[in-house]
Amino acid sequence: MKLIFGVDIGGTRIKIGRFTEDGKLLEKWSVKTDLSDHGAHIVPLVAEEIQAHRKARGISEEKVLGIGMGIPGPVAPGGFVEKCVNLHWNAFNPVTELARFFPNHQIRAENDANVASLGEYFQGAGRNVSSMMMVTLGTGVGGGVILDGRILVGAHGIAGEIGHIAADPTQEEICNCGNRGCIDQCASATGIVRKAEKLLASVDQPSALRDFETLTAKEICDCAKEKDPLAIRVIEECMYPLGVGLAYFSHAFDPEMYVIGGGVSLAGEVIIKAVQKGYQEQFFLTKKKADIRLAELGNDAGITGACALIAKE
Amino acid sequence: MKLIFGVDIGGTRIKIGRFTEDGKLLEKWSVKTDLSDHGAHIVPLVAEEIQAHRKARGISEEKVLGIGMGIPGPVAPGGFVEKCVNLHWNAFNPVTELARFFPNHQIRAENDANVASLGEYFQGAGRNVSSMMMVTLGTGVGGGVILDGRILVGAHGIAGEIGHIAADPTQEEICNCGNRGCIDQCASATGIVRKAEKLLASVDQPSALRDFETLTAKEICDCAKEKDPLAIRVIEECMYPLGVGLAYFSHAFDPEMYVIGGGVSLAGEVIIKAVQKGYQEQFFLTKKKADIRLAELGNDAGITGACALIAKE
Repeated sequence: MKLIFGVDIGGTRIKIGRFTEDGKLLEKWSVKTDLSDHGAHIVPLVAEEIQAHRKARGISEEKVLGIGMGIPGPVAPGGFVEKCVNLHWNAFNPVTELARFFPNHQIRAENDANVASLGEYFQGAGRNVSSMMMVTLGTGVGGGVILDGRILVGAHGIAGEIGHIAADPTQEEICNCGNRGCIDQCASATGIVRKAEKLLASVDQPSALRDFETLTAKEICDCAKEKDPLAIRVIEECMYPLGVGLAYFSHAFDPEMYVIGGGVSLAGEVIIKAVQKGYQEQFFLTKKKADIRLAELGNDAGITGACALIAKE
Repeated sequence: MKLIFGVDIGGTRIKIGRFTEDGKLLEKWSVKTDLSDHGAHIVPLVAEEIQAHRKARGISEEKVLGIGMGIPGPVAPGGFVEKCVNLHWNAFNPVTELARFFPNHQIRAENDANVASLGEYFQGAGRNVSSMMMVTLGTGVGGGVILDGRILVGAHGIAGEIGHIAADPTQEEICNCGNRGCIDQCASATGIVRKAEKLLASVDQPSALRDFETLTAKEICDCAKEKDPLAIRVIEECMYPLGVGLAYFSHAFDPEMYVIGGGVSLAGEVIIKAVQKGYQEQFFLTKKKADIRLAELGNDAGITGACALIAKE
């Protein structure tokens, strides 16, 4: 059986995994991302890391099927990246660049959120379904759609962008996108902190949240897991609009499953329950509904999806 | 070049078209739908009509590539129809039934709204795009999604069901689906009449609409085309939520184009403008937006899409 390297290039670290061609993770490591010289050293570093790893393990070049990459920005068909703020790239093609080091191998790159979705589809929560959407709850809210094993990019590159659906009529803030009520403004780590601060200021209810000098989303999620009523209320109010947005999306492309990942999802079932409530209350059309569940691969979703870019060829 | 027959089976009439294999309509006709005996005579009648037409035109059996059908209800893969209220069918497979008459030909069937969308994609407004959604504004509001030439059915058969997105917070009525605010309740012919009656009762403004004893959607659309201000206001208020729903759908599967068809769309550009307003006001993410335009094939969309089921094989 051949081997695949899956690479998840982030603005801080580059994660690399060695996989069997059917997607079993054999070994993984990471290195610091070198952003100097407009990110010109990133791809050579990926090549160097893979070659050194290969040689150290006594793996012949012929044994490697290919290398897949997740990139933190929009990727055009063929791998062209017009602009990637996090990597300081401008008009750069990491696929052709990496192919200079590996001229005899399959090389592919896609947007990292889409790649993480493909990872959950390939080896994680979505491994038994034929269509799936993954929602990543981090600093912002991202999404990736997989239909019949393929990433749905969309005609303008925004398929699955659930973060900018206006589903929260209670919001006063204007989102970065210019709209009001965006899911990004409530279901993200940022949104959770803002909601908690507002609630703490407006009600007298005692809560463990009051013990923190500066609140983070992690602490709020931890308190919710510990059943602190106010923390649970924060999570419920933040996640309900996401459920409403997923109901809209079910009317659009009707996936078999939604997978909720990202740092915020580590709070676990309290997140899923709150999302499900919004979903159920805006979805009347059929009794059969999409399954909503937690992601399973955590930080490995990226390298696994990058592997799937090659394995699924 | 071979020939294809496209069949659009409705509860009132069956429309049949003879096409070249690249989708050019050569001739069309229709017959009354015989609903007796639980719709048992419908498929034999289709077979009889096609055979008689073929013989009358001196077309050999070998010259026929296949027959596609649009069915007014949900169709499972392979053609099985669990229930089709309009045709009185229960647990019936029109594909295997028609294949008894045409054992050497390709036969396919799909839901009629999806088939009409495929028709517009194949030969109508969407003929130059790679992804498209058609919205049919009739007694209700239906939709069909085409991605890369294939109908998107969805995991629960509801992909493209824009009618039951709640996008009109002003609605007081409960939709048949159980929700409130559904697009079906405002952008349909029924919804337009209801909105007009309400407006006429609540404002004093003079309007040509007041001259009708019983209003229909067609009259309201005609008055809007004649620039009657109150009729235009009715159309604008009815279509705005549809534009909002399309913005949600663009965040989901991001098609290149939306095509608006069905009887209500005959009002023309006044519909498109009102839909675009809602769309623009809920879509901030990119400057590149999906094109929204009128359907081009009218009543021929169904037979054309039925032809495409075979031509696109």
